[in-house]
Amino acid sequence: MSDPVVRCAENIEKVRQNKPLIHNITNYVVMNYTANVLLAAGASPVMAHAENEVEEMVGFAGALVLNIGTLSDSWISSMLRAGRKASKLGTPIVLDPVGSGATRLRTETARTIIAETNVSIVRGNASEILSLHDEDSKSKGVDSLHSVDQAESSAMTLASELGATLAITGPTDFITDGTRILRVKNGHPLMPMVTGTGCSATAIIGAFSAVDLDPLSAAATALAYFGLAGELAARTALGPGSFMTGILDALYQITPDDIVAGCKIVEG
Amino acid sequence: MSDPVVRCAENIEKVRQNKPLIHNITNYVVMNYTANVLLAAGASPVMAHAENEVEEMVGFAGALVLNIGTLSDSWISSMLRAGRKASKLGTPIVLDPVGSGATRLRTETARTIIAETNVSIVRGNASEILSLHDEDSKSKGVDSLHSVDQAESSAMTLASELGATLAITGPTDFITDGTRILRVKNGHPLMPMVTGTGCSATAIIGAFSAVDLDPLSAAATALAYFGLAGELAARTALGPGSFMTGILDALYQITPDDIVAGCKIVEG
Amino acid sequence: MSDPVVRCAENIEKVRQNKPLIHNITNYVVMNYTANVLLAAGASPVMAHAENEVEEMVGFAGALVLNIGTLSDSWISSMLRAGRKASKLGTPIVLDPVGSGATRLRTETARTIIAETNVSIVRGNASEILSLHDEDSKSKGVDSLHSVDQAESSAMTLASELGATLAITGPTDFITDGTRILRVKNGHPLMPMVTGTGCSATAIIGAFSAVDLDPLSAAATALAYFGLAGELAARTALGPGSFMTGILDALYQITPDDIVAGCKIVEG
Repeated sequence: MSDPVVRCAENIEKVRQNKPLIHNITNYVVMNYTANVLLAAGASPVMAHAENEVEEMVGFAGALVLNIGTLSDSWISSMLRAGRKASKLGTPIVLDPVGSGATRLRTETARTIIAETNVSIVRGNASEILSLHDEDSKSKGVDSLHSVDQAESSAMTLASELGATLAITGPTDFITDGTRILRVKNGHPLMPMVTGTGCSATAIIGAFSAVDLDPLSAAATALAYFGLAGELAARTALGPGSFMTGILDALYQITPDDIVAGCKIVEG
Repeated sequence: MSDPVVRCAENIEKVRQNKPLIHNITNYVVMNYTANVLLAAGASPVMAHAENEVEEMVGFAGALVLNIGTLSDSWISSMLRAGRKASKLGTPIVLDPVGSGATRLRTETARTIIAETNVSIVRGNASEILSLHDEDSKSKGVDSLHSVDQAESSAMTLASELGATLAITGPTDFITDGTRILRVKNGHPLMPMVTGTGCSATAIIGAFSAVDLDPLSAAATALAYFGLAGELAARTALGPGSFMTGILDALYQITPDDIVAGCKIVEG
Repeated sequence: MSDPVVRCAENIEKVRQNKPLIHNITNYVVMNYTANVLLAAGASPVMAHAENEVEEMVGFAGALVLNIGTLSDSWISSMLRAGRKASKLGTPIVLDPVGSGATRLRTETARTIIAETNVSIVRGNASEILSLHDEDSKSKGVDSLHSVDQAESSAMTLASELGATLAITGPTDFITDGTRILRVKNGHPLMPMVTGTGCSATAIIGAFSAVDLDPLSAAATALAYFGLAGELAARTALGPGSFMTGILDALYQITPDDIVAGCKIVEG
């Protein structure tokens, strides 16, 4: 692939120009923030979860984002219906397995979505990614009990098995399609102090996957852009409240030049 | 009617004094922001959607706001139950047909609510308003594919047919009861960059309709007040995050004098 | 008990060190803000409401927070299942009876939760607390129609009957376990202008009850800490928007010294 930092600048320009419709079936906690993150990035978010609507809605979408943060049975059905339709259409599906490993319902749902739909990219913390591969891995609620490097080899194996891109986020993000590896060193320690930053990163990956045909590149460049927004927001933040607001401002303000100057994506 | 700008100043004073209870059955994405917008304006919001609760709750309300942004079957039933009860009680009903025209479920639900309840005011973007009148009109998710002036004549016809007020929001808002027309020139280009500004405008219309018996006046003055808050917020905003925060501050701070100085409502 | 202000400083330190997992089954309106409040305080929030998940999730939690702000039948079942499991495990349960007294569904649900689970602490406004004790008490939507002192004797009786701690919040908060009384004089008039400040106070009580075995002390110190955050946020707030953001910043920034200097908890 071309220089990933240049690709990042190109992707954000494409999102702002094309304003891809991103169909999210996501959790109640982060719906508002995720929608605002997508708008600030230039995309057009829609949230729709009714079983009798999702197949029609996903037909218009540039990407489908599935997030299992607050599950119930009818939402699982909707995710599977939307996912199967997206798979048929060749629309990229991005999965956020929030809390997989914490409860059986979450682990099983994440695995079912992966088995029954053509997931293009999975983004999670180390415990969540491990739980998709290892029978006995555990999460603490929605927080990780593992470091990124503990999950790298599971992510590579899983990526190869699924033909998908796996992205583990943490202090340094690890992204692999089973063969290639990219690492993203953007981000800030305040990010885990705001709910939905992980979910929002996943949504941005959705927006980038609507304009970048290479899932590895889409995932890594989206994470770099989102992490850079966190770094810029942290410069003036007084705490997680102003930081959360500042991320939206930064996503909106970041120029291609900022990206070239600030994004840290390395290969291998 | 009296000078609409004076009426706007009177309405905001009445909302702050009477603190009308506004019953919202709205979408998950905007619930928090809508509640905060209503509080900042001086109203008393309540969100309640249980089928076995909505009729009792709407009995205490000064207005009912129905918003179809994230539908499912039980929510549709609740909206209809609450709407029928409000119709019986003569309580104003304000409808926000979010995404009508994008999927059949949304278009049909918006039309059913209009057919089965006594909707007083409908607020939407041009595509949403068109979809209520024209068989083949389309929306892009929850974004408009049409300009306000493309929907004006449909809005006038629909207003006359329904005996309701129709409000199309965009760069200049168009409000009609089928006979009279008001246009509101307040607002700011950042507003569509924040999710729920349209839904929040609808909620403010609900609050104003609880204190102003003329739906045309209630709708136009609410949109002017909300648009002015956007203009004031934009003066110091660095992007959509601080803008979103600033709208809440401005709604709270705006004085009757600010309204007389800044609201731009024109007749015809 | 030891000096409650010293205890408050100790409790916030313990929350930041232990990062207790707080399982919330709460309303849609405040989920995001509540999660961010808990994160800013140093706790680890999880929101999970599926009937087939809550018993497993609560098994990992340091406290369970039940909030009836937006009810439906399946959520009531989940609250009861989670509550019964927490009761068996001896995990503290904190109840926020939002809008109890406003509709029969809410009043009955709050009473059922109290009857069928081992609630440790109930926090509400005066009308909500009265509705749990007096047959005919009324609320205005989710706002109080009564002053704190009107509900004090009902709270004392109820606390004795239930063997629980009752916390009535208002300009001065009243907390009792039926025998002992603490009053908290922290807080700011802007707090009721932001949705979810009451619900967030309840969630903080949950976090403190995970590290403080005395429910009276946990409730009062949590309310003092949260009220102090409101006071600090109000110093620079321009309105409810920046105030809401500032509370998150302040919760994160407050030091044990700030608590000793600013918390106002009095006995009796």
